[in-house]
Amino acid sequence: MRSSTAEKRERFDPSSALINDLMEEFGESVTTSVSVCERHGTDESFHLPHSPDVVVFVRSTEQVSKIVKLCAKYQAPVIAYGTGTSLEGHVAALYGGVCVDLSQMKTVVEVNQEDLDCTVQAGVTRKQLNEYLRDTGLFFAVDPGADASIGGMAATRASGTNAVRYGTMRETVMSLKVVLPDGRVIQTARRSRKSAAGYDLTRLFVGSEGTLGIITEITLRLFGIPEAIASAVCSFPTVEEAVNSVILAIQSGIPVARIELLDDITMGAINNFSKTNYPVAQTLFYEFHGSKAGVAEQSRQAQEIAAEFGGSNFQWETLPEDRNRLWQARHDALYAMNALRPGSKPMVTDVCVPISRLAECIRETKTDLDGSSIMAPIAGHVGDGNFHVAYLLDPNDNKEIKEAGDMHDRLVMRALAMNGTCTGEHGIGYGKINFLNAELGEGVSVMREIKRALDPDNIMNPGKIVQI
Amino acid sequence: MRSSTAEKRERFDPSSALINDLMEEFGESVTTSVSVCERHGTDESFHLPHSPDVVVFVRSTEQVSKIVKLCAKYQAPVIAYGTGTSLEGHVAALYGGVCVDLSQMKTVVEVNQEDLDCTVQAGVTRKQLNEYLRDTGLFFAVDPGADASIGGMAATRASGTNAVRYGTMRETVMSLKVVLPDGRVIQTARRSRKSAAGYDLTRLFVGSEGTLGIITEITLRLFGIPEAIASAVCSFPTVEEAVNSVILAIQSGIPVARIELLDDITMGAINNFSKTNYPVAQTLFYEFHGSKAGVAEQSRQAQEIAAEFGGSNFQWETLPEDRNRLWQARHDALYAMNALRPGSKPMVTDVCVPISRLAECIRETKTDLDGSSIMAPIAGHVGDGNFHVAYLLDPNDNKEIKEAGDMHDRLVMRALAMNGTCTGEHGIGYGKINFLNAELGEGVSVMREIKRALDPDNIMNPGKIVQI
Repeated sequence: MRSSTAEKRERFDPSSALINDLMEEFGESVTTSVSVCERHGTDESFHLPHSPDVVVFVRSTEQVSKIVKLCAKYQAPVIAYGTGTSLEGHVAALYGGVCVDLSQMKTVVEVNQEDLDCTVQAGVTRKQLNEYLRDTGLFFAVDPGADASIGGMAATRASGTNAVRYGTMRETVMSLKVVLPDGRVIQTARRSRKSAAGYDLTRLFVGSEGTLGIITEITLRLFGIPEAIASAVCSFPTVEEAVNSVILAIQSGIPVARIELLDDITMGAINNFSKTNYPVAQTLFYEFHGSKAGVAEQSRQAQEIAAEFGGSNFQWETLPEDRNRLWQARHDALYAMNALRPGSKPMVTDVCVPISRLAECIRETKTDLDGSSIMAPIAGHVGDGNFHVAYLLDPNDNKEIKEAGDMHDRLVMRALAMNGTCTGEHGIGYGKINFLNAELGEGVSVMREIKRALDPDNIMNPGKIVQI
Repeated sequence: MRSSTAEKRERFDPSSALINDLMEEFGESVTTSVSVCERHGTDESFHLPHSPDVVVFVRSTEQVSKIVKLCAKYQAPVIAYGTGTSLEGHVAALYGGVCVDLSQMKTVVEVNQEDLDCTVQAGVTRKQLNEYLRDTGLFFAVDPGADASIGGMAATRASGTNAVRYGTMRETVMSLKVVLPDGRVIQTARRSRKSAAGYDLTRLFVGSEGTLGIITEITLRLFGIPEAIASAVCSFPTVEEAVNSVILAIQSGIPVARIELLDDITMGAINNFSKTNYPVAQTLFYEFHGSKAGVAEQSRQAQEIAAEFGGSNFQWETLPEDRNRLWQARHDALYAMNALRPGSKPMVTDVCVPISRLAECIRETKTDLDGSSIMAPIAGHVGDGNFHVAYLLDPNDNKEIKEAGDMHDRLVMRALAMNGTCTGEHGIGYGKINFLNAELGEGVSVMREIKRALDPDNIMNPGKIVQI
């Protein structure tokens, strides 16, 4: 092995002159308020929050570049912040330092209708963008549970319910404007639909979690809003039967737009939280996009396949408001799960396996849960082999936390043993660094070499993805 | 700028003990035959060939690793070779050294029908793979003109006629086995359909042209062979009208599988070469995939849109042998163009622009050509904004070569001025290094930093993509 041993960086000294320099340059956009700093070091994960020493609210790439140059001068950690909805401790300032809040960079820079693309600043959220696009006949397809910022979604390679048809941020991002660790600004690609011009810088920064640079602008692929959309809900006797019906539907080439699995516990949680009355069973949520005739054909085929696997209670939603209610319920699943146990905090995780192993992976996970008193609903983007488990924990009960942690570790190792990944869409943050090593071994040393080459002083979101 | 000035490496000393070491280890798989070396330093481009000093025919990843370790020890250049069909001088041994011929690594390692994926060794060609898959109901969708090796296609981020629907190698490669510059072997990803686990090593090596490592195994996404397929040919009065019909078809959400533009000169060349009798006009080749009803609907919609833009002589091909003849004619376009001028050698290039600029880019390119006596057919993957020009040149006429070179340079700068890329699918090799700088500026310094970090001695295909 060529890589050296781990060497952590030291904590930033908050008495450094950096904070004065920032205040001089950015005035009221800088704060060291304890509550603001605390909020900016906290995400939606179970991992311990860590406050930055200072937060700067920015409005332009130039401002981000200036901040990063100052941080480079003082060797201070610099952490990008969007909406704080990350799930592996991504925004935690493990070594203190400067948080760059990009949430005010909310400009849609351009929409190119003929090219089906647009460019947005990093603070634009997915819902804001789709609201903006409403009259163009186009939409942005990536939809994680939260109304996350698009900069954050790019930085964590986010995904969601549409990925099976429209791809994740990996496929959706066409180009990025990035502030490098020395303050230089690059554009990673031109606006052409494809390119064979050199190393794929766009894909390198997508999913780099702020450890190689700060993404300030994103050029995104858009899709035409389909002529017809139909959504449906169907109950299955077992997870296996639900998953097998999905495998057959995808193998049959049915261009399903969304196909989501929710277990019986999650369905009960959703009914309580979203005032719906779906059957409390292993359930698939479907959506079909296309022409009217195409959607009718897809729907019929999927329903036939579901019936082969014991699917029942097929319930169609074709009115926009009914479909929106259905998908909002799905997006709110995490919050619904959490409400199952008042006062609890969910330890949320996700893994992704080849779809042929998905039923087995979920079944073994449920068996593991059967031996515990901890409630843990399961929901997943089953068309991609990706699923989530939310262990609902008493945050003050260390025994429970330990027990859930052990089950969580077994879940991830189970997914890895099935040739899966330790995270399908949440990212590594500082929560899954050890699992990344287990997953890719020597590959992680290549990541470390890249990190060292681009950020030799380890100022960009230090302690995430790789320890150097 | 943090990057240092260009420093080229020295030529490998062919009297080095390395060649003896290779012969000792690999016996008859090693050759220094002049004709074999010449062939391995030559591709299908107009760029000067450069022979390696020795060629080693390999059969396994372990063998590649051993060779690379020896090359690292002697600081010798090492260049991967598949079928030699690259188009920007990728296989030229600019500084001599060792060519690793992977063409005998022809094993399909596994096919996972339920997961719609497979793993192949680098020397498997696209036609060989599809032949192998024939009875599975699945197919591999990326189809450059040549029957290239899949290792080479991954290394150059190849594309082809299906990319508008199924993506390029960027979207199709799920994971790679790569021999690093010090001989270590990594697997870049697990076999899950998506992952948010760390830097996207897969995408970093796809398109890296052998400059960061040698790809020995590729895991690929496959698709189900559609129930119905229809192909068609349609003539248009002008390039603008053809392109505008494509823009409208894609905006309308018609999931066209292939949509190719061939200009009048190319159509004449194809008729001569492939014994077809298509109208000699600006022409679109279409293909629609789906259910029978879906294909019928798509075909009807596309034909209606074509008619709005003056499309005529719509000619359908639905029998497999007729469709195959049509697409083989398209794939042979480069050879057909070349046959237009016996004894000529084509200077082939490709650029890619946002589709809204495509008609303008092609028109200006044709206007530039009008002022020249050089014949240069144009063909393109118009759904992606990507097109090819083949300047048919007398290889002994320096004046003609200079004139074509100037037109070529204007073409690439025109594409860049339209926010396009200097290559949509051929790659950089050593032919387009200056254009890569013009395209991405400071971004290239990031590529250089990555190259230096992973290959500090610059032994992997030196002189390609970036000069360090």
